[in-house]
Amino acid sequence: MPSIKDVATLAGVAVGTVSRVINNSGAVKPDTRRKVEEAIQELNYIPNEVARNFKIGKSKMVALLLPSIWHPFFSELAYYIEDELDREGFKLMLCNSGGKPEKELYYLDMLQQNKVAGIVGITYNDIENSVSNDIPIISIDRHFNKNITCVTSDNYEGGRLALRELVKAGAKKPAFMGSVTSVFSETMNRREGFIQEAKALGIDYAVYEKSDPVEDDDAYFDEFLDKHHDVDGVFAITDMFAAKYIERAGKMGIRVPEDVKVIGYDGIQDHPYFHPILSTIRQPVEEMARMTIRLLYKKIEGESLHRDVYRLPVVFRAGETT
Amino acid sequence: MPSIKDVATLAGVAVGTVSRVINNSGAVKPDTRRKVEEAIQELNYIPNEVARNFKIGKSKMVALLLPSIWHPFFSELAYYIEDELDREGFKLMLCNSGGKPEKELYYLDMLQQNKVAGIVGITYNDIENSVSNDIPIISIDRHFNKNITCVTSDNYEGGRLALRELVKAGAKKPAFMGSVTSVFSETMNRREGFIQEAKALGIDYAVYEKSDPVEDDDAYFDEFLDKHHDVDGVFAITDMFAAKYIERAGKMGIRVPEDVKVIGYDGIQDHPYFHPILSTIRQPVEEMARMTIRLLYKKIEGESLHRDVYRLPVVFRAGETT
Repeated sequence: MPSIKDVATLAGVAVGTVSRVINNSGAVKPDTRRKVEEAIQELNYIPNEVARNFKIGKSKMVALLLPSIWHPFFSELAYYIEDELDREGFKLMLCNSGGKPEKELYYLDMLQQNKVAGIVGITYNDIENSVSNDIPIISIDRHFNKNITCVTSDNYEGGRLALRELVKAGAKKPAFMGSVTSVFSETMNRREGFIQEAKALGIDYAVYEKSDPVEDDDAYFDEFLDKHHDVDGVFAITDMFAAKYIERAGKMGIRVPEDVKVIGYDGIQDHPYFHPILSTIRQPVEEMARMTIRLLYKKIEGESLHRDVYRLPVVFRAGETT
Repeated sequence: MPSIKDVATLAGVAVGTVSRVINNSGAVKPDTRRKVEEAIQELNYIPNEVARNFKIGKSKMVALLLPSIWHPFFSELAYYIEDELDREGFKLMLCNSGGKPEKELYYLDMLQQNKVAGIVGITYNDIENSVSNDIPIISIDRHFNKNITCVTSDNYEGGRLALRELVKAGAKKPAFMGSVTSVFSETMNRREGFIQEAKALGIDYAVYEKSDPVEDDDAYFDEFLDKHHDVDGVFAITDMFAAKYIERAGKMGIRVPEDVKVIGYDGIQDHPYFHPILSTIRQPVEEMARMTIRLLYKKIEGESLHRDVYRLPVVFRAGETT
């Protein structure tokens, strides 16, 4: 394998000159540049990026810290994040935290050691003090107090929209169904939008919540079904909550959408082959992913961002459950 | 941020000594090691892994090259691969190729430049000559001729099992339904197992295949439905094929499983909330992921592997379609 020295020797220049050509840094005469490029081609020299990163003191690696890639919402997000990174020659390091605080802390520590260029974090735990100010970071869905920009869907408008769609579908007593994380997350605005819109329209409503994570699904849904006989519409905080509710309600003889209209949040179903196709508030996953990376690039380049939170519009996607 | 020089100064030793302590390489007197470790702690010095990798000439990064993380089979696989890598402090770089040969070649070239420690490749194209002998690589599902070990599920046995289960469910004329990639892939053994078992049992059968990728789904399934009126059992090469067939057949008034029994391959449905729950040949995804990484470690350490192909057993998982 030829080295940078071989290239320098063949081109008749100093090693530093070859380095400047490869890294596109510093002035190099056009003639000299040509000679170096010819030598690189002739020797089929492959620059060693590990070494190059060492010289320029940074890597072109961006880390994505998320609860689990094995979830349709996160895998779609990761797909577009990788695609957007690749456009600028950045690479994606994937870190599954399992949603566990200790694993998130471990990864954040590891990422600082590895000098990644930046981090995209999807975390619902209290790791605020462990997030270094040195590393550019963009958060998805989670609004930290610190100088960490957050990209999220317009959860509040999504909640309002869900309430209106349930009412439009005929619900007289809609309920919000969700779980509460220990720290504030933008996703909580789904409930707020739902409640405020119900109040504004003078609609009777219910709210049903338990602490996150919900350990016993059956108990969670049975308690809801037990307490809320009069509910004829459900806005579930995620599509998975909606799907689980429908399955459990079906076993109790409750038909969806005949007896209860159901709307989820996310839009995880990409295919019309599995039923029920959920009526849902669809997050603009691709736009969120691309905006996250473009904002991260700005941070990496030292620019300051105009806003703390970037909220992207959501749409209602009708399925078979309203 | 303290540098390695600061550590050396405080400990009263040379920079090389600090480096040997950090990298655990070369002899260092216990007393000296203690002094260095104390200095590291006192200064809260974080070793720069980019620099460290440069010194030892390798990274602890493993690349996963796959068609798309946005597919339930691959995202489950990636989840367990990352988990297994993390046990040894390795990190996962994710590369979506979109299944396109030019993107696969681009990534392979990029990975050589980045000196990753190893590659896990899931590719169905003819990129054989572009795979460097220098980088340890394990392939999933694809058997190259070169010295590249492959981990796969027992596709042949899976095909036999599917045939037997269709017959057991009452099918008199089962069909294999699939697509053909341009290069040999282990997945093709699904068809072989199916055919051989049908012959062995003296069962009348059909085979329906088109070149991969299938561009026009509707035309693909309509042609099958048109040609194979007498088929009362379908073994689809993947769960997605099975799900699409069932949807299309339903529109033509064909009921599953009453008129046609259907079995897929993969086992992508993690939740019993979306229907139909497919009867399927379940790949042991977690075991495949962990074995892949353990074999890759052996290759990274220069060991030679005993086999070219490691096939892991599959099971039949009954759903609502047989």
